[in-house]
Amino acid sequence: MIILKNEEKTFTYSEKERKIGTGNSAVTVPPNLIVSPGDVISTKSGVYTALHFQPPEFGNVCRRNAQIIQPHDASYMIFRSGVRTGSVVLEAGAGSGSLSSFILWSIGSSGKLVTVDNNENNLAATKENLSNFYDLSNWFPMLGDVRTEKIEGRFDAIFLDIPDPWNAVSNVIENLKPGGFVTTYSPNFNQMEKTVIEMKKLGMLVMENTELIRRNMLVREGSTRPDHNSLWHTAFITFAVKRSSSPLKL
Amino acid sequence: MIILKNEEKTFTYSEKERKIGTGNSAVTVPPNLIVSPGDVISTKSGVYTALHFQPPEFGNVCRRNAQIIQPHDASYMIFRSGVRTGSVVLEAGAGSGSLSSFILWSIGSSGKLVTVDNNENNLAATKENLSNFYDLSNWFPMLGDVRTEKIEGRFDAIFLDIPDPWNAVSNVIENLKPGGFVTTYSPNFNQMEKTVIEMKKLGMLVMENTELIRRNMLVREGSTRPDHNSLWHTAFITFAVKRSSSPLKL
Repeated sequence: MIILKNEEKTFTYSEKERKIGTGNSAVTVPPNLIVSPGDVISTKSGVYTALHFQPPEFGNVCRRNAQIIQPHDASYMIFRSGVRTGSVVLEAGAGSGSLSSFILWSIGSSGKLVTVDNNENNLAATKENLSNFYDLSNWFPMLGDVRTEKIEGRFDAIFLDIPDPWNAVSNVIENLKPGGFVTTYSPNFNQMEKTVIEMKKLGMLVMENTELIRRNMLVREGSTRPDHNSLWHTAFITFAVKRSSSPLKL
Repeated sequence: MIILKNEEKTFTYSEKERKIGTGNSAVTVPPNLIVSPGDVISTKSGVYTALHFQPPEFGNVCRRNAQIIQPHDASYMIFRSGVRTGSVVLEAGAGSGSLSSFILWSIGSSGKLVTVDNNENNLAATKENLSNFYDLSNWFPMLGDVRTEKIEGRFDAIFLDIPDPWNAVSNVIENLKPGGFVTTYSPNFNQMEKTVIEMKKLGMLVMENTELIRRNMLVREGSTRPDHNSLWHTAFITFAVKRSSSPLKL
């Protein structure tokens, strides 16, 4: 799948179906035209540049049924939780699949992602969105309540993007390997505070509580300035590590 | 290599050498003690939690000979430029190896990283820092001036963290694959502006100019607030894509 982009719009181009998805409709590409990354495509509606797909573009082309986790947040969440090739990851909820896309991209075919959501429509939308870019043989959707559901498996990392993560940590911590991270994404101070209290009660090391603010810049010769359209708040991110119970003496 | 961490300090533990590096000195771990991620280690100087290494910890334990690219910036730079398993990447300069660490982590053993710097000491420090965490068989340091040096190879992505990236883009763009990203990291508006003007002159699509601000949070029951110690400015990040020369008509 290729991304077509200019300053205003983002489309997808499916090589297999030879179709450009323009949001509401699709344009068929003639059989003699080969579109490669870097190509400049001039159409009636404007000039576009073809790009390789990358997770930060996912939110621009997916069907949104929930606020997505922003790319700058998701990027840091992946690295700060140690997720990489081969990682086995649990996340809840599904949202529109934006964080799932970052995770699948990072873990590769040797990793595994379980996505828990208590809403069937969220899982269906996430599946539809992800299937445009991933083969999904290592993606396991699970309908259920992450706060109470018995979950199988041992995970390297767990992400919670639900309204009350503090009610879920004690249920999922059993499934987390020692040294693994629970990462939560909470719009409010109050959610973060309750979650941190619960994490400490469970003996976790709370590594970091942070928010990332993205300020876009309008760059023009002689009149460069911050864009009005910046993201002054998305959510607070908490990173905590599962500790083993018996301390070693040195 | 394992990271040992508490709220104040970060140390490294080398399994092979059985030594804990505490910055100025090293503590030998007795042969009967096995340290695994998640373990809590109690020492005379405090209680530490053992963690898997991850790139955001690199800056806490490396020998710094330059301001490092901050983890939240580096994370976004990696994802936004499409760098992943197998990518072939060029970067300049070396700094202390913080971005190099993110790149090596992301590209894995099937990828390749060339790091150009005109200062031998920077390359030596970077090599020493990286060798603690990576095998370096796919890392190629190169002594030279990225603005003028003839560079071999074709790259998926290029990162420029030098004082005058606008003087280097025209030299390296020949080595970039169409659809590949040049990503620059510039502390000043002026540097970003000059770079964007040069990128546009070279026919690139400037995708995004942004700064990320990290605000750390102090979370305590009933008195949660932003930390005084936040990062209100690091650098402006510019992402631009190389376009092919002849446009396709649709």
